[in-house]
Amino acid sequence: MNQDYIIPNNWSILEEGFDAERVEASESLFSLGNGAMGQRANFEENYSGSTFQGSYIAGIYYPDKTKVGWWKNGYPEYFAKVLNAPNWIGINVSINGEALDLHTCKDVKDYRREFNMKEGWYERSFTAIMPNELEVEVKVLRFLSLKRNELGAIKYELTVKNVDANIIFEPYLDSGITNEDANWEEKFWKTLEINTIADRGFITAKTFKTEFHATAFMQSRLFQDDREVKTGFSKIQENEKISFRYEVAAKKGEKVALQKFGGYVTDMNHQREQLVFAANNVLENAVSAGFETLLEEQKQAWAEIWEMADIAIQGDVKAQQGIRFNIFQLNQTYLGTDARLNIGPKGFTGEKYGGSTYWDTEAYCIPFYMATKNHEVARNLLTYRYNHLGRAIENAEKLGFTNGAALYPMVTMNGEESHNEWEITFEEIHRNGAMVVAIKRYVDYTGDFSYIPEKGLEVMIAIARFWQQRANYSTQKDKFVILGVTGPNEYENNVNNNWYTNYIAKWCIDYCVASIEKVKQEFASDYSRIIEKTGLSAEEVSNWKEVSEKMYFPYSEEYKVFLQQDNFLDKEIVPVSELSRAQRPINQKWSWDRILRSCYIKQADVLQGFYFFEDHFSKAELEKHFDFYEPLTVHESSLSPCVHSIQAAALGRMEQAYEFYLRTSRLDLDDYNNEVKEGCHITSMAGTWMSIVEGFGGMRIVDGKLSFNPRIPNGWEGYSFKLNFRDQILKINVAPEKTSFTLEGHDPLEIHVNGNVVKVEPSVPLTV
Amino acid sequence: MNQDYIIPNNWSILEEGFDAERVEASESLFSLGNGAMGQRANFEENYSGSTFQGSYIAGIYYPDKTKVGWWKNGYPEYFAKVLNAPNWIGINVSINGEALDLHTCKDVKDYRREFNMKEGWYERSFTAIMPNELEVEVKVLRFLSLKRNELGAIKYELTVKNVDANIIFEPYLDSGITNEDANWEEKFWKTLEINTIADRGFITAKTFKTEFHATAFMQSRLFQDDREVKTGFSKIQENEKISFRYEVAAKKGEKVALQKFGGYVTDMNHQREQLVFAANNVLENAVSAGFETLLEEQKQAWAEIWEMADIAIQGDVKAQQGIRFNIFQLNQTYLGTDARLNIGPKGFTGEKYGGSTYWDTEAYCIPFYMATKNHEVARNLLTYRYNHLGRAIENAEKLGFTNGAALYPMVTMNGEESHNEWEITFEEIHRNGAMVVAIKRYVDYTGDFSYIPEKGLEVMIAIARFWQQRANYSTQKDKFVILGVTGPNEYENNVNNNWYTNYIAKWCIDYCVASIEKVKQEFASDYSRIIEKTGLSAEEVSNWKEVSEKMYFPYSEEYKVFLQQDNFLDKEIVPVSELSRAQRPINQKWSWDRILRSCYIKQADVLQGFYFFEDHFSKAELEKHFDFYEPLTVHESSLSPCVHSIQAAALGRMEQAYEFYLRTSRLDLDDYNNEVKEGCHITSMAGTWMSIVEGFGGMRIVDGKLSFNPRIPNGWEGYSFKLNFRDQILKINVAPEKTSFTLEGHDPLEIHVNGNVVKVEPSVPLTV
Repeated sequence: MNQDYIIPNNWSILEEGFDAERVEASESLFSLGNGAMGQRANFEENYSGSTFQGSYIAGIYYPDKTKVGWWKNGYPEYFAKVLNAPNWIGINVSINGEALDLHTCKDVKDYRREFNMKEGWYERSFTAIMPNELEVEVKVLRFLSLKRNELGAIKYELTVKNVDANIIFEPYLDSGITNEDANWEEKFWKTLEINTIADRGFITAKTFKTEFHATAFMQSRLFQDDREVKTGFSKIQENEKISFRYEVAAKKGEKVALQKFGGYVTDMNHQREQLVFAANNVLENAVSAGFETLLEEQKQAWAEIWEMADIAIQGDVKAQQGIRFNIFQLNQTYLGTDARLNIGPKGFTGEKYGGSTYWDTEAYCIPFYMATKNHEVARNLLTYRYNHLGRAIENAEKLGFTNGAALYPMVTMNGEESHNEWEITFEEIHRNGAMVVAIKRYVDYTGDFSYIPEKGLEVMIAIARFWQQRANYSTQKDKFVILGVTGPNEYENNVNNNWYTNYIAKWCIDYCVASIEKVKQEFASDYSRIIEKTGLSAEEVSNWKEVSEKMYFPYSEEYKVFLQQDNFLDKEIVPVSELSRAQRPINQKWSWDRILRSCYIKQADVLQGFYFFEDHFSKAELEKHFDFYEPLTVHESSLSPCVHSIQAAALGRMEQAYEFYLRTSRLDLDDYNNEVKEGCHITSMAGTWMSIVEGFGGMRIVDGKLSFNPRIPNGWEGYSFKLNFRDQILKINVAPEKTSFTLEGHDPLEIHVNGNVVKVEPSVPLTV
Repeated sequence: MNQDYIIPNNWSILEEGFDAERVEASESLFSLGNGAMGQRANFEENYSGSTFQGSYIAGIYYPDKTKVGWWKNGYPEYFAKVLNAPNWIGINVSINGEALDLHTCKDVKDYRREFNMKEGWYERSFTAIMPNELEVEVKVLRFLSLKRNELGAIKYELTVKNVDANIIFEPYLDSGITNEDANWEEKFWKTLEINTIADRGFITAKTFKTEFHATAFMQSRLFQDDREVKTGFSKIQENEKISFRYEVAAKKGEKVALQKFGGYVTDMNHQREQLVFAANNVLENAVSAGFETLLEEQKQAWAEIWEMADIAIQGDVKAQQGIRFNIFQLNQTYLGTDARLNIGPKGFTGEKYGGSTYWDTEAYCIPFYMATKNHEVARNLLTYRYNHLGRAIENAEKLGFTNGAALYPMVTMNGEESHNEWEITFEEIHRNGAMVVAIKRYVDYTGDFSYIPEKGLEVMIAIARFWQQRANYSTQKDKFVILGVTGPNEYENNVNNNWYTNYIAKWCIDYCVASIEKVKQEFASDYSRIIEKTGLSAEEVSNWKEVSEKMYFPYSEEYKVFLQQDNFLDKEIVPVSELSRAQRPINQKWSWDRILRSCYIKQADVLQGFYFFEDHFSKAELEKHFDFYEPLTVHESSLSPCVHSIQAAALGRMEQAYEFYLRTSRLDLDDYNNEVKEGCHITSMAGTWMSIVEGFGGMRIVDGKLSFNPRIPNGWEGYSFKLNFRDQILKINVAPEKTSFTLEGHDPLEIHVNGNVVKVEPSVPLTV
């Protein structure tokens, strides 16, 4: 780990003491989101030290022209960038003519940040000695409303301790913002209009190229000793900024407060010409409800989320804080209510990686959302890809594929590929397989096969077509091979016969063929529609089957393991344990050349396949592969430790499983990869959830039934979680030597526990 | 071919008829150079149509910050860009107040360009009907002086045919220029000073970052009916431009002419503070000599070059024009007199590829310069790499190599790597081998072994160290393997055991070990110095030998050929002949993904190895490999057809050899790759020379003797060329059924002809 300043606490993320070096990291960790908008924990008042300013609106992006050294055919034209949106949180403060700026204060005492995850708010407080010797006590509470997802609210309380003082608050909106991550240092927003209506301010801006229109808005109320003051104010309008100036004379020790309501409305949800009107409505409703009411709503909304999604751990505060932070951030990022949105790798905590959607969603996130929310949410995530099928077919056509073959993008905002490295976009084709894995998981978990005839089968056919065309017959092997790929392990490029890719390709074909058969038997009208739409012929399916049946899998007779790729054993095999700490992380210490030629694995690859298809292999096989690959894995991807944790648990290696759990759950809090200031690793947080539920809890679906094999890491007194399984809620409470199950539902539920079938009756706790 | 507007002629490149679409292509083809500076065939007068402006100074470059989508450790910081230098050729012309601009003229008649290669000048003439109905006849002669390599001269003659007219010439210097090829659209030059002394103008500018200082200069003389007119002129000075305005009243039909002398002096050759003084000297000497004297000097200098370098072909004008164009361009680019310079891939004809030095120099260019110039020139080219050895060691260190291992750069200006694609810089390591091949060729051809103890052995040791470290032992193969490389065929990346790379690696070690032994025996003091300097131990050499002895070479028992790389036969093998024309060139029609997975070969790869090490293999082996790989080769690199031409000739397949010869010799004239407007392919032109000398002529060195096996392509009446062999000149004249040899030298020379040893006496023609 690279930092340990976050104070362990069951329900809050806490920081104490001001350190300018930590500002950017904390800006990431204390980021707020409500699924529709997000905000890094930037200070409201001006800060002249190092800061990474970030305000984000879900679904709004900019197609940043691709930057490469040497253009190659098929490159995507752009990289879809997550956009820093106009600033609505800003409140400049000056006291007796001196600006409050923590970077220039003589001293900052009692500095404290609290991120209250239970109630969904963020508070920052401190006492500053300003250059003019004023002693100022400040407490700022901020939240983004879950219930009103276009709204945020701030309460900025300030007390000058040592003198009477003249205080000026200048809440503002600013659309003259820039992006940390921009290929060409272009501006992404064009300011269209600034309006004011009484004490309400509005800036309407549009993104260049994509022409998203957004109106940022604000309204403020001033309080003195907790009584609202109806005072005058002045307006300062600049080209891309509007500020309102509130001035108040405060006695020594008298508390003044500014409440600021703000946020965004966009043309994704409103008519363009109605944006200011819509924003005005949001403000009208918010201000008339009042700050305290809004805050109560917020607590209530988060209580509802936690009621279902919480995982409680007894006896290990750091582990508890870690999992709650993960669950909290996942819910801040995506709530599943808008099928146009998805789960960006950094959520609303940063800009790196761009795009909103990676294979992370299908491979890691869907199980979490499926089990902790209404199943419609998981269906929405599947439908997102169904809606992008046409674009995925176009993407494959650009690379030379035909006949409706689809290659889903590595990164996307709107279905188009928008990454920009050939070794990733052209080669990391295994992502196509995750689309189908997600469908299977959805069907198995929810029991809702109807998604396949309705939508899923078209996706699966297009993907099967891709695999059949992408494989080629090797006469010397008398097998089908898949050449020139990058597997999940991105520390190898352009390898042949990556086992994971070949295996998932074959499986996609097999699962598609079986699904076609089932749809043909049971959903005749869907079947006809799909056959007509896709033009699928029996001959084509038979070509697929040939590829599947003769797919090649590299295997070592010597080690009795599948090989990550054809020539893996030609590498020099030296376990990670023999690498000095000074050499790691290798992606910061070694040249790319050296990494590619090394045996080191960035993230689970063959083991990722064993994770998805665990039931295809014996435990002895899992163990053999785990023992071969785990020692070579450096886990320099956030998506890696969770899989290893689950597998270590399945093998009964609880100490190792716990170590991987800590790494995945506290990846950002403890900054394992020395990069949290760029933002948090949102999608891997769903992997953390899986480490507990599938790892320690041993949850699987076996023959359509929930199955558990619960274990407790050393030192834990117990843990509990809930699953929404087929519209009934099952609560699992694991304590030493006993596990109890409580069903909130209507029908008795048969489950497997440690290999035995037991029946849980509604509302009757069952202890095993 | 994509164009055929160049009129065949034995000694000139000719274009007739104005076509705006051809302007940029002709700007490349008619480029001038004198080894020290160069100039695309841009018009002197303003041209508002599409044009690619390029004026270049040898050795002056800009480190353009690398552009990549995603930074990886070890990437070079910059790509060294060839720089468009301040314009000295410009002469704006206006007549009766209307600017002469071929793009806006009502008509352009009798347009003609001639590039007289024999005499080294370029002339453009036309009759234009201007928008104001004036009929203007123009003839412009231009050359860059070989003898005075800081000087160029222009004679701009103009006659208004239909009226008396007022003519204004505005010769100018302009440093406000931009680069076609710039990653960030930055300016590369900063203008420092503009001076004028009487009718002489000077602009001194420096390059950003590299701080090269250059002074562009000019002086003009005005003539009316061939008599000099001493008229007044005015000066117009702008921030980055200085123009002199000469006004003259001309009668209808009266010829007026402006002679402009100009060029560059730089701080590579002068003190910075003396630049204007030096430029003034150049002008002083040039103007006092006068245009006609300078032109005579030029003809004389080119006559001397042709005397030695010409290849005369009888009976095939296109073939003759092709080879002379190639020889002419090579001499325009590099004359071998300055060891700091090298042969850029586009010479002075464009900016693409940047850098000045690729492995092209060692692999293709050295034989030409060695045989047609004093051997000191080839030695200078070898010394260039010796001088960069420290940088090559640093380059390897950046990638993780140690102990003085060297990796020569893929592209460089000053010894540092300056390409920017990992798959090229990190992987295309075979270039290291060409450095040693060049040393061996030099020693074999010149008989001068002394280069090895003096300089070459240090280079060879550093390269042997690299190969030993880069190879790794594969337990499963019980061999040393070289993983993750790109061979000469850049249509495969990150392959394992590229045969060419493995073979040249082993050979480098073997040749180094043998050289060490010879130096130890015969150059004891050099040996001690080198051992001390390099710290070489017997143990290290024995480690090298182990790698060499156990090097792995992929081989197909089925086809009895070495395989281009481990998994080549897993690809779908379909000959190029079955690819439709519409699919080619594949680098313009296919995605990179599809290219990488295909079996198509961009340029000779295994066959390149057979070319370098022909004597290691039997003719039957060559034939087998040629028949296997030739049908899969698309020749989308300019460096490919020459090798195939030589090998086809060696196999007696004259028709095929001739086809490849035409392709290499007229690559730019006929624009085979549809890109000549970006510049000409200079380095491959040396391959064209080899196609005749080594291909048709069958020239080899056998046991230290020149050896020939002459053949004549169908339709040729004969051909002749000269070789400077060990300080004697041998002229070879090949006619049907007989070849004659004439020796200009002092000692009888034993040579092989068609396998027999014959003796050529000085000045006594010998016919066989």
